[in-house]
Amino acid sequence: MRKLNIAIVGLGNIGSYLFKFLNKNKKFLTEKNNCVPVIKYVSAKNKKKKRKIKIKSDQWVNNYLDLTKLKDVDLIIELIGGCEGPAKKLVFNALKNKKHVVTANKALIAKYGDKLSKIAEKNKVNLEFEAAVCGGVPIIRSLKEGLIANKISKIYGIFNGTSNYILSTMDKQNKSFNFVLNKAKDLGYAESNPSTDLNGDDVAAKLKILSSLCFNSFLNHNIYVEGIKEIDRNDIDNANKLGYKVKLLGYAEKINNKIYQRVHPTLIKKSSYVAGIDGVLNAVIVEGKPVGQSTIQGEGAGPSATTSALVSDISSILRGNIKFPFSLSEKERKKIKYSTIDERLFAAYLKFEVLDKPGVLSNITSVFSKNKVSIERLVQNPDKGKKISTIIIITYNTKNKYLKRIINEITKKNFIKKKPKLIRIDNN
Amino acid sequence: MRKLNIAIVGLGNIGSYLFKFLNKNKKFLTEKNNCVPVIKYVSAKNKKKKRKIKIKSDQWVNNYLDLTKLKDVDLIIELIGGCEGPAKKLVFNALKNKKHVVTANKALIAKYGDKLSKIAEKNKVNLEFEAAVCGGVPIIRSLKEGLIANKISKIYGIFNGTSNYILSTMDKQNKSFNFVLNKAKDLGYAESNPSTDLNGDDVAAKLKILSSLCFNSFLNHNIYVEGIKEIDRNDIDNANKLGYKVKLLGYAEKINNKIYQRVHPTLIKKSSYVAGIDGVLNAVIVEGKPVGQSTIQGEGAGPSATTSALVSDISSILRGNIKFPFSLSEKERKKIKYSTIDERLFAAYLKFEVLDKPGVLSNITSVFSKNKVSIERLVQNPDKGKKISTIIIITYNTKNKYLKRIINEITKKNFIKKKPKLIRIDNN
Repeated sequence: MRKLNIAIVGLGNIGSYLFKFLNKNKKFLTEKNNCVPVIKYVSAKNKKKKRKIKIKSDQWVNNYLDLTKLKDVDLIIELIGGCEGPAKKLVFNALKNKKHVVTANKALIAKYGDKLSKIAEKNKVNLEFEAAVCGGVPIIRSLKEGLIANKISKIYGIFNGTSNYILSTMDKQNKSFNFVLNKAKDLGYAESNPSTDLNGDDVAAKLKILSSLCFNSFLNHNIYVEGIKEIDRNDIDNANKLGYKVKLLGYAEKINNKIYQRVHPTLIKKSSYVAGIDGVLNAVIVEGKPVGQSTIQGEGAGPSATTSALVSDISSILRGNIKFPFSLSEKERKKIKYSTIDERLFAAYLKFEVLDKPGVLSNITSVFSKNKVSIERLVQNPDKGKKISTIIIITYNTKNKYLKRIINEITKKNFIKKKPKLIRIDNN
Repeated sequence: MRKLNIAIVGLGNIGSYLFKFLNKNKKFLTEKNNCVPVIKYVSAKNKKKKRKIKIKSDQWVNNYLDLTKLKDVDLIIELIGGCEGPAKKLVFNALKNKKHVVTANKALIAKYGDKLSKIAEKNKVNLEFEAAVCGGVPIIRSLKEGLIANKISKIYGIFNGTSNYILSTMDKQNKSFNFVLNKAKDLGYAESNPSTDLNGDDVAAKLKILSSLCFNSFLNHNIYVEGIKEIDRNDIDNANKLGYKVKLLGYAEKINNKIYQRVHPTLIKKSSYVAGIDGVLNAVIVEGKPVGQSTIQGEGAGPSATTSALVSDISSILRGNIKFPFSLSEKERKKIKYSTIDERLFAAYLKFEVLDKPGVLSNITSVFSKNKVSIERLVQNPDKGKKISTIIIITYNTKNKYLKRIINEITKKNFIKKKPKLIRIDNN
């Protein structure tokens, strides 16, 4: 029976879970893949740290980079994290030395995926990263295989469980952003420093990878990114009254042969599928021909869901499937034009807190009319005690650049009490 | 460049669509799979039938069985349908003659899949059937690859678009079964003879295939099957009032190392994911460790969704991935015990139409109490004009055999005006 010698680098929650899982399921995985997965070596920053796994003394390697040179290593699993430093060194060196690589590192793949893919292709080894994008949702393998026939026009969805937990809990329990964020930290749904989850960067990295796979293109960093930090309870209440939920969505779409990539809070109809995805779940919706619409939903993160993804990649290598990391060879990947969202049409929700005095409303609406943006609905709620008033405006479809102009122009007005807010609407 | 010679047998809607698709996307599929798909031959029942595809004269073969012997055929795509006759002959002969086979034929695979798989394994050729189960939902490839790490405990969902269209349209438009069935026929959502869609057999065939893949077992025909023909508007209204939707669901689940397979109309909570799947969509929910719950949703049938599935199978063969049809080799597939649902617990909705006279209600409830089945809710609606009364009973969890006993016993009573009805409830 063939065997595959594996080295795991990084033994945090995920690395330790994977170590246990591979040991426990060796027979099962051997039967399914006709090849024995052997954990030959492990390496991590701190040898003395207490871990709930039994590492044999001859399994431990002090210098993780040595693994890239050892003859009895076939596959290196990188679970260090971060797009620079040790993770980058390890993966580049591993591929250069003709080792297969499996990684859960979305930041690394989003940044260096094209370069890494070129080395993997040249050296005929695998570089697999199912675990980098929505752990329990087998979207990468589905794009590469199950949906391979399709010309994809759009991929979108909920790619960050932390943000989705915060927004859906703020809504259901009527609590503030900070209250829910602290609860998420207590429950282990948010890291102690949750900034990449909340500012949209985590979604952006995943979206770049998916976009490249969907459109057979190189990775591209032309992407609009906005997180959820400025969403408050009042926005969620207003959205509800208007028939919407607020979700942090990532979109990559092809319109007239240009790709638009964007991540931002979105008002989406309550009756839509995505509006019903609550808590830490992830959901990915793919639109293409001939399949129509195909949707995959599951747990996005955590040791168990991530291990499911890592093991699917490991199994693919056990079976000896050498494939291009991005589905096509370097020379066949396309150079497609990526565009900013300036010219893209959006309906939008805008909120202005203003001094409650005569003339303000007409002043605001005149800015809309000057920029040729039509208003679908307008609601003014005065707070007589504070002498301020909140104006909510829902626009018809208009170019993003006009929305920006309106916000910039109105922000400067002296009757504005607070930074105006803009949330784009998805009416599909 | 390598090439793969393909023969398509059966040129109905799906065969014709696939023929056009492969011709149009030859370059794209070659780039993705490093192998050229060549439609070498086609065959169908009636050569003279008008089709909207351009078949070259040297592509047509009169006797489809000749294709299994031609040296310049590598892959046969079977799109004839039916589990006996020509389809069976073609697929058995193709595999025996070491041709790869791709099929959309669920009835054939559900019945002869184990025998066919054995021949494919012996002859080291592929037998692929993604298109046999929920066309636009890449569930088979997901089970074999994306979710390969998982010990699956349950798979369930909506596997028949026709039935789902009928039930959801009866609900939304408040129309009768027959009215909606005729509409479905007009729209092409139901065949002129829709019996296998309506009696549950179509779901049963898909479920047997999925069950075998999930539990690494042989195909098993111990399955409870009940269709939707007896569901009327009144049941749907009653369900709504009680907070449920009526769906035709298929379930395969492992409980105490026994597998239960069942297909039946089910009352499922309105707030559940499955209750929100309307129209001709299919949805498959997989529960397993370590992934938790993973869900895939998409169009279940029709030429375009089916072609997406067929081409994913063809691509897998183009790339030269020889795999066991059911993921494991013959000798490693398990013999697991399959059980009838007699001992399984269900809550249930029961409806009795009775003569409106004294003593009936206590007579009915005494049958429940004799069989030790607890009643959670009871609603009696008298129709004074007709002197009949409808009694709806919702039970607590109880063994299926007791529910059957109650129905059998009460059916014989002389106060019963109409065949009593039983719909199982899924409270998850």
